[in-house]
Amino acid sequence: MLRFDLLHTEGHARRGRLTLNHGVVETPIFMPVGTYGTVKGVMPASLEAMGAQIILGNTFHLWLRPGLDVLRQFGGLHRFENWQRPILTDSGGFQVWSLGAMRKISEEGVKFASPVNGDKLFLTPETSMQIQTVLNSDIVMQFDECTPYETSGHLTTEQEARASMELSLRWAARCKTEFARLENPNALFGIVQGGMFEPLRQASLDALVAMDFPGYAIGGVSVGEPKDEMLRIMAHTPHRLPAHKPRYLMGVGTPEDLVEGVTQGVDLFDCVMPTRNARNGHLFTRHGDLRLRNARYKTDERPIDESCTCTACNGFSRAYLHHLDRCGEMLGPMLTSIHNLHYFLNLMREVREALDAGRFEAFRAQFRADRARGV
Amino acid sequence: MLRFDLLHTEGHARRGRLTLNHGVVETPIFMPVGTYGTVKGVMPASLEAMGAQIILGNTFHLWLRPGLDVLRQFGGLHRFENWQRPILTDSGGFQVWSLGAMRKISEEGVKFASPVNGDKLFLTPETSMQIQTVLNSDIVMQFDECTPYETSGHLTTEQEARASMELSLRWAARCKTEFARLENPNALFGIVQGGMFEPLRQASLDALVAMDFPGYAIGGVSVGEPKDEMLRIMAHTPHRLPAHKPRYLMGVGTPEDLVEGVTQGVDLFDCVMPTRNARNGHLFTRHGDLRLRNARYKTDERPIDESCTCTACNGFSRAYLHHLDRCGEMLGPMLTSIHNLHYFLNLMREVREALDAGRFEAFRAQFRADRARGV
Repeated sequence: MLRFDLLHTEGHARRGRLTLNHGVVETPIFMPVGTYGTVKGVMPASLEAMGAQIILGNTFHLWLRPGLDVLRQFGGLHRFENWQRPILTDSGGFQVWSLGAMRKISEEGVKFASPVNGDKLFLTPETSMQIQTVLNSDIVMQFDECTPYETSGHLTTEQEARASMELSLRWAARCKTEFARLENPNALFGIVQGGMFEPLRQASLDALVAMDFPGYAIGGVSVGEPKDEMLRIMAHTPHRLPAHKPRYLMGVGTPEDLVEGVTQGVDLFDCVMPTRNARNGHLFTRHGDLRLRNARYKTDERPIDESCTCTACNGFSRAYLHHLDRCGEMLGPMLTSIHNLHYFLNLMREVREALDAGRFEAFRAQFRADRARGV
Repeated sequence: MLRFDLLHTEGHARRGRLTLNHGVVETPIFMPVGTYGTVKGVMPASLEAMGAQIILGNTFHLWLRPGLDVLRQFGGLHRFENWQRPILTDSGGFQVWSLGAMRKISEEGVKFASPVNGDKLFLTPETSMQIQTVLNSDIVMQFDECTPYETSGHLTTEQEARASMELSLRWAARCKTEFARLENPNALFGIVQGGMFEPLRQASLDALVAMDFPGYAIGGVSVGEPKDEMLRIMAHTPHRLPAHKPRYLMGVGTPEDLVEGVTQGVDLFDCVMPTRNARNGHLFTRHGDLRLRNARYKTDERPIDESCTCTACNGFSRAYLHHLDRCGEMLGPMLTSIHNLHYFLNLMREVREALDAGRFEAFRAQFRADRARGV
């Protein structure tokens, strides 16, 4: 099931509430990414404590490891990974696309060799739905082809982007049919493609809306395009989607991107940036980004962010975190991952509070000024 | 300060209470090892939750990274690593010994090249005391030479072991003098050496007791000798030490070794085994050891140990932990490190309860039977 209540709007920005089989999600929201059934380096209890309401899982990776037999035995991903709140799973399309030359796309689906053991595998819209039904994720994504921005230096042409988008539309219809046949009790989202071409985005959107999905995603952004191209698509598509259904911008992005996405009418975001950057010593704070490996932090007794209430900012100094990073100690990424995720989740909580109070525009201006100040 | 109250004995086994500058330690106790100012992969709050009362830090490693300037700025190790309970630091002797051919030992001390940046360094009894004074550890270990069991296939002779032990005694006296000169407010332990030779152990013990340390360690065990040699020394030395002072068996060992050590009159233990083995999928349970990488655990829905109350055994299956290990996910060692440390700490809690109840011998028999059952 999926129910979406639109509570309040300010311009295109929306404050909503999404009710799924495993619980309620207040939107706008950031969704931590748990590719292999774990948000890297973070305990499920820590995710709950920092206010995570929904996390991602990855159909492609979980299909390969631990495999469907194990996940079926556990009745899905929730019990397996000890997370009782909602889960969204991607369709595997993006990962298959990431395999590059190792995969072959046809009308039927995608043939590829398993990067784990070399097995020949075939992923189709139907198998993606079957896998996601076993995973029992609350939000299921259609299997799509992620249209690249460029391939080996060749920019995707409008003709190529159209062919790719139309394939994704045909796959969307097959997903819908299979999802219904499987009597999956969760919610299937369609994905708008169309590359960097507004007319194609509009055509994709119109066709998907005609199919009447309970929610829609904007895919094919944050795939290597320049920032202004991404912002152009973010300004075009979200607010044109049906107002009474949730909108998910896939794989985006920086704190600034998230606030911009909300401004353009997006409800759901996901990105590996908080956890991946944490492991590389790139930390997000209210006053800009902090590069923990900089030698200046060797003796800095302050927490990462003095305005932050996360576990890492309560008792651990920049100097200590710098030391842990330098020694390659696990506790380093454990603490910085908590901090970065807390930052993203708290940012969206502040966004929701601003929307509730009808002062999102003022919040946005303050956010920009704070972030520009520098750490 | 150090105060040791001997509460109860059963044979050589002792139930005691150690009061240090940062708090009280109920003995017998296992001390988790935090080499670089972090118990690998475990949050300080998790250590507290699982009942850790005192942890180790490593003089040698902390001297190199983050260095004394940083540790002095933080007023010692406690604030730097966000651990407010007692800390014991080793002297650096064992690590210098581990450098093998890279170091040169003289009467004055040990010259070696930093394994971090190649700097020429010189560690003496005096510098070890100076470093440990900056660390402000509750228990300071004397600088000693760890007598090897064998060197490149050559078994250490009694003559060599005697020369090494006598050097450690002269260093013990220098440590005591320097520790007093520094007005270090904590407690300095002497270390009994003497290799695998009981007469040398006795001579070392007698000389150290004559110097009147507030506590004593047994060093130079668990250095590659066969198990029966270790048990022979464990049976010889601990109960000959002064009854009213704490006894610390360095670097030991398996759960069976710990229970045997308690039987022989040991109060304090440390070992990297729980955390190191956890990272390699070697888990300790009430009913024996569990090798998580065994394919049989791929579908095992049970927790690591059904009688265990740790975080890992509440909500996480062997199948999930097997999966995390297979995928190289950080959450794997995070959970297994908690489990193994919890196992060691809980084992010692059960030992203390048995001693309190005057039924340690019965406990020991049950422990052996349980562990032999198999997981």
